[in-house]
Amino acid sequence: MRDFTFFAPTRILFGKGKIAELPQHIGAKKVLLAYGGGSVKRAGIYDELTSLLRAAGIEWQELSGIQPNPKITSVQEGVRLCKEHDLKAVIALGGGSVIDCCKAVAAGVFHKGDLWEMVEKNAVKHALPLYAVLTMAATGSEMNGNAVISNMALNEKKAIKSELLKPVASVLDPTYTFTVPRFQTAAGVADIMSHILECYFSDVHCAAVQDGISEALLKVCIEYGRRAVVTPTDYTARANLMWASSLAINGLTSCGTGNAWSCHAIEHQLSAYYDITHGAGLAVVTISWFDHILSEKTLDKFVSYGKNVWGITGEHPFAIAKEAIAKTREFFASLGLPETLRGLGIHSSEYFHEMAKKAVAEDLAHAYVPLDEDDVVAIYSTSL
Amino acid sequence: MRDFTFFAPTRILFGKGKIAELPQHIGAKKVLLAYGGGSVKRAGIYDELTSLLRAAGIEWQELSGIQPNPKITSVQEGVRLCKEHDLKAVIALGGGSVIDCCKAVAAGVFHKGDLWEMVEKNAVKHALPLYAVLTMAATGSEMNGNAVISNMALNEKKAIKSELLKPVASVLDPTYTFTVPRFQTAAGVADIMSHILECYFSDVHCAAVQDGISEALLKVCIEYGRRAVVTPTDYTARANLMWASSLAINGLTSCGTGNAWSCHAIEHQLSAYYDITHGAGLAVVTISWFDHILSEKTLDKFVSYGKNVWGITGEHPFAIAKEAIAKTREFFASLGLPETLRGLGIHSSEYFHEMAKKAVAEDLAHAYVPLDEDDVVAIYSTSL
Repeated sequence: MRDFTFFAPTRILFGKGKIAELPQHIGAKKVLLAYGGGSVKRAGIYDELTSLLRAAGIEWQELSGIQPNPKITSVQEGVRLCKEHDLKAVIALGGGSVIDCCKAVAAGVFHKGDLWEMVEKNAVKHALPLYAVLTMAATGSEMNGNAVISNMALNEKKAIKSELLKPVASVLDPTYTFTVPRFQTAAGVADIMSHILECYFSDVHCAAVQDGISEALLKVCIEYGRRAVVTPTDYTARANLMWASSLAINGLTSCGTGNAWSCHAIEHQLSAYYDITHGAGLAVVTISWFDHILSEKTLDKFVSYGKNVWGITGEHPFAIAKEAIAKTREFFASLGLPETLRGLGIHSSEYFHEMAKKAVAEDLAHAYVPLDEDDVVAIYSTSL
Repeated sequence: MRDFTFFAPTRILFGKGKIAELPQHIGAKKVLLAYGGGSVKRAGIYDELTSLLRAAGIEWQELSGIQPNPKITSVQEGVRLCKEHDLKAVIALGGGSVIDCCKAVAAGVFHKGDLWEMVEKNAVKHALPLYAVLTMAATGSEMNGNAVISNMALNEKKAIKSELLKPVASVLDPTYTFTVPRFQTAAGVADIMSHILECYFSDVHCAAVQDGISEALLKVCIEYGRRAVVTPTDYTARANLMWASSLAINGLTSCGTGNAWSCHAIEHQLSAYYDITHGAGLAVVTISWFDHILSEKTLDKFVSYGKNVWGITGEHPFAIAKEAIAKTREFFASLGLPETLRGLGIHSSEYFHEMAKKAVAEDLAHAYVPLDEDDVVAIYSTSL
């Protein structure tokens, strides 16, 4: 096990109706309330939250229309609102995109100069307190200090990371995810699993606590992912997926392990160039990456994954590894996720080299299996 | 899954030499430094810590001689020192007993009136910031807000609990546990496992995340507990046990599950009357409790425990359950822990009824399997 610092100070308010407890944790009296489209209004969550804020004497300004792969333009608008109205906290009502956007806003209020430059340089010096009301189980942004922001003008997608961006409190009410469509639910499951797999496939061989937790969470994703896409209002399935989403990427699986995140680096380029759904892109890329990195060197980890997560028995390590990959592929397909980039609307290899160059720049020379541009182009190509 | 709040704000500094990072997280310039006997001096940890404090310009007063099953008399002395010298933070250097004592001191500084009354009534209103340098993997006190204090004059052992008592930061350096004797190591493993089992054996049947994490941590205890008692300087074993000890009782395994903690209520009386090692008492009590509660109603959980933790195969549920209990018993014995109360120096049933009455008062009517005084007397009797 490597040395690490674990710090997950976010207060999680988990369960049906837990939103009622949120206002008591908000110190500010003037806040930014940010959300995406109309779904939080249709589902009644917006009304529930604003009633609670009103009752607590908390005023708000609204930032709406935050899109998937949240854009720097939304961040700019949010910062403008905070400055104009002297807002002292940010409440994100939505999924990972809304929360990520709010993190950049919370930091951006204190940034002098260009906000995209702040993102590119990860120049977070201070931030407003942030609260999240989660409506989708996927990114885990509700319990960590990471945010990914897109600049479509530049075809760039960049991450900022700071413990200042960890939400003070997050509401996880599984019933809020009952209306998440099947495709988004499935993409969320793939996203959660990818967060775990990026840490699990590591050259650290002695982090048994982290490996065991990772395997447990992966099995939860498989069992309850299947149930949630079939029965969207299955509370137990939604609850387990929601809690797994937070624990998958709050430091528990990555502490003392870990390398550069290969699949995320590779997928972020796809989202940046084609604005595809992140989790769906990850499902495709993960399988191609698995195929690409399976070797004598990585075999033991694949065997652990196959035996402990998929329950594969047998004597031949390579057979177990290949079956583990096949089962992962079948699982993603069974959720209704596309198996190829074509299925995601990407029909050409036009940008593969350009994207590979940007992906490799995210430290893929120090990945679990180091990857160069040719490797990444190969992964894109077999994904097509 | 039941509704829950999860809040684990303690910053964990994990790894060899991580103590060097502690001072930067301490805001106070005058602190209480508390420890037990001379072992932290012999091991050099005391010198390491005090050198760092000196370099950071932090002054300290010392409270030493804190005993296992920490006594209210130590708490009183610590509070006196804090008030007399106007100390603004508390650093616990030791295992769970030292940390628990320091929690009561941190709260006691603000308590008006009798300190034992504060403990009895769990009257924690405010507390000094607390820091821990852990030297033993067992209680998990380094990452939660619980403390257990003994009053030997009254034969009482009582718990206080408040999120104000959660350490600001805890140093977990596995090398600090290299010198923990075999018996204490074994008792620590039993303590960690008991924390997990108290939550795992629950009437909540749909908390898959928590169950999976619990099973993973139990398997870590079994594999690395065996290794640590054989090779005390096995870094990987010590590191996995240390991290498991914190995660076993920081809320991860109890959130959304859980009932009254039967074995702890039953064991606390043994420690209060006989001052035995808590973890060793738990190992004995847990087996008798398992035997006592195995029934058609609890069978499924025993089967999950047997299959998922011990890898038992087979078709007959009761056979699996009994084998799981037998394997747990054999495991504790293999670590060198006594299998009976006699082995712990308790030769008489003199106080069984008196102790049972006190144990039941800790809400055992609402345990996983509700227990009355006769049940607890029976558990003590089969443990003898």
